[in-house]
This record gives sequence, C-alpha cells and structure tokens, in this order.
Amino acid sequence: MVMENQAERHNRVMARRKRWMDEQIARAQADKGVLLVLTGDGKGKSSSAFGMAARALGHGMRVAILQFIKAPLDTGEERFFSQFGNVAFHALGEGFTWETQNFERDRAIAEAGWALARDYLRDPATDMVILDELCVALAYHYLDWNSLRGDVLARPDHQHAIITGRGAPQGLIDDADTVTEMRALKHAFDAGIRAQKGIEL
Amino acid sequence: MVMENQAERHNRVMARRKRWMDEQIARAQADKGVLLVLTGDGKGKSSSAFGMAARALGHGMRVAILQFIKAPLDTGEERFFSQFGNVAFHALGEGFTWETQNFERDRAIAEAGWALARDYLRDPATDMVILDELCVALAYHYLDWNSLRGDVLARPDHQHAIITGRGAPQGLIDDADTVTEMRALKHAFDAGIRAQKGIEL
Repeated sequence: MVMENQAERHNRVMARRKRWMDEQIARAQADKGVLLVLTGDGKGKSSSAFGMAARALGHGMRVAILQFIKAPLDTGEERFFSQFGNVAFHALGEGFTWETQNFERDRAIAEAGWALARDYLRDPATDMVILDELCVALAYHYLDWNSLRGDVLARPDHQHAIITGRGAPQGLIDDADTVTEMRALKHAFDAGIRAQKGIEL
Repeated sequence: MVMENQAERHNRVMARRKRWMDEQIARAQADKGVLLVLTGDGKGKSSSAFGMAARALGHGMRVAILQFIKAPLDTGEERFFSQFGNVAFHALGEGFTWETQNFERDRAIAEAGWALARDYLRDPATDMVILDELCVALAYHYLDWNSLRGDVLARPDHQHAIITGRGAPQGLIDDADTVTEMRALKHAFDAGIRAQKGIEL
C-alpha cells in the first residue's frame, strides 16, 4: 500500500534523524558562551537577536542590548525590552549615518558606544550581549574589528555575544562560532508595501 | 588630506543612501499586513519571528504564536511569551517527528493545529500570526500548502503572517511578500559546543 510505504519511509528517516541528533548532542562537549554573527542583506538579523534575547529572558538570564545604528523607523523593541529588569537597552546610534552625514561625529558616537559595550563584555553578571548593527558600524569604518575583537574574545566564559548587521568582515566571521547569512529571496519593499510598525520587512 | 577625502566620500555616499531610502518610502503605497517567510538551513528563523513578536508587542499589537514542531530542547520562548496578555502561545508539535516516529499521528496533530491557526487567521483582533516551523510540517507532508494558502491569503488586511522553517515549498515562496533564506556559513555545533539554553545555535 502506498500509504504504508510513505509512513514506513517517514519513520525510517525520522529514526535516522533522531540518531544523528542524539549523537551530535552526545559528542558536543564544550559548555560555553558562543559568538554568533547574523549578517547578509536579507531581513531578520536584528529580529533574530531580539528573539534570542526573549528566549534568554525566559531562562532568567540577564541581557544587554546595544544598538549601534538606529533603525530608520521606530521598531518597538526598545519600548518592549525596556520593561524588563533583566535587560539593559542602549540605543547608541541616535541620528546615525544617512540622517547625519558627518563621519567624524558618527565615529565618535560609535567609539563611545564601544566603551559601554566593553563594560558589559567584562561583566560576569551579563549572560548575553547583543551588539546590534555593529557590522554596519564596521562597514562604515566607524570601528575596526581588529581593535574590538580582544574585548569580545576575552568576555566571561558563559557569556553569549550576538553581533548583527550586513557586511560582517572576514575577521569577525573567522572569530565567530556560528555565522548565519540572511539572504533576501523576495522583498515586499520592492512590491510597494510601506514599511510597517511591528514587522521588519 | 586623506581624512577629509574619506569623510567627504562617506558623506556623499550617505546622502545618496538617504535619497534612495526616502524615495523608497515615498513610493511605497500599500499599508497592509505582509506574508513573511523565513526559511533556509541556517539558524535564526524562529528567533527572528519571536523578535518580530517582541516588536509587535512593543507597539501594543496582539500576537498569536503557533509552534508546529517542538524544538528538541526547551528554548524558553513559551515561558517568556506566555506572560503577556497580548500573546496566545500554542505549542502544537508536542512529541512530534523524530521523537514519535508515527506518521499518521503526526499528521493528525498537524491538522488539528491548522484548525486552530485558521481561527487566528480569521480573527481581526489578531495583528500578527506566527506559524513557527510550519515549513517543516509541509516538508514532512503533514500538511499541504495548496490546502492552507486560501486561509492565509484571506486573512484580515492588516494582519501579518510569519511562516518559518527550512524547506519552504515554492508555492509558499510565490505567495509570500518577503522571503529570507538563512544560510549557515559556520555552525558551533560542528565545533563541539553543546546546544545552550537561551541561544539558538
């Protein structure tokens, strides 16, 4: 019977997948914070980091969020995350980039922002540090990864660091534990739908 | 001077980018809910959807989250989002896939889950519906996009629908407004770091 065959094949595939997953989990040894990079030109990089913050809060962890570039529209995340005692939220990039058009001023803002980031990266009470849109600050040469990486790699063992933004430099990719590239296969902006509150198009 | 040239070039590029962004925003006319798909084999798909939920909550919106496949580890998002009155959270995929290895039972669970999803997709008071890991339920043939798409496309005009999971079928991609593919460039799992609470490796 066709249906039985489909069910049997499905069960065999699932059993194999379960074995593989169990093996991966058993083999993995290290229990330490990871350096995660979310890059690429597709949407969802910052959202993904904020979703990870939500998960971390669900586990009672303490989270620091530093936004290096302000979004062109109010996106609600500051309002949302600021209500939690376990979250430190810093919108560093107020008036950045195309709204200001002043390179030296932008660079000074970014450097002051990094001094703040460094404090969290040295704080064992902070379980997760989100450096949102840091890659953009790197791409615009406001900051240089070679100058920052020591602070990131020296963070407390258990602390997760999440860095987002398009154009992650190769040095950062080399240093990261996990790198996801978001690719835009299709974009509503092109189709003439206005950027919406509550959703990152 | 080299520094001036760099600053001038930067300002010119930023001015051009600002013009482009302003034009895009001005040109975009429609103000409606979008169908957003987050797919691919990289990490961050569900996290991204949860981050969008956080943003939406920051705007006072009402969100329904339906998880079609339960994550192999407790990831904290249910615990986190269940505390908000504006969120309806349903973990539909309890014991799904490789933990159960029973195709017909899984399919019945998925179909019951879709009946619930349909209720939210018809509810004008729900501003955002997250169908987490639905693509996986489609890929395993628990559900068929051709049977579901009418419910999704007929939802209230302002309602956002976000569908996640690897292996989005072409029909879904064709119907979507925005599609992001998450590609794994590097994965800590390969490097022997144990899957962690509070972070999606």
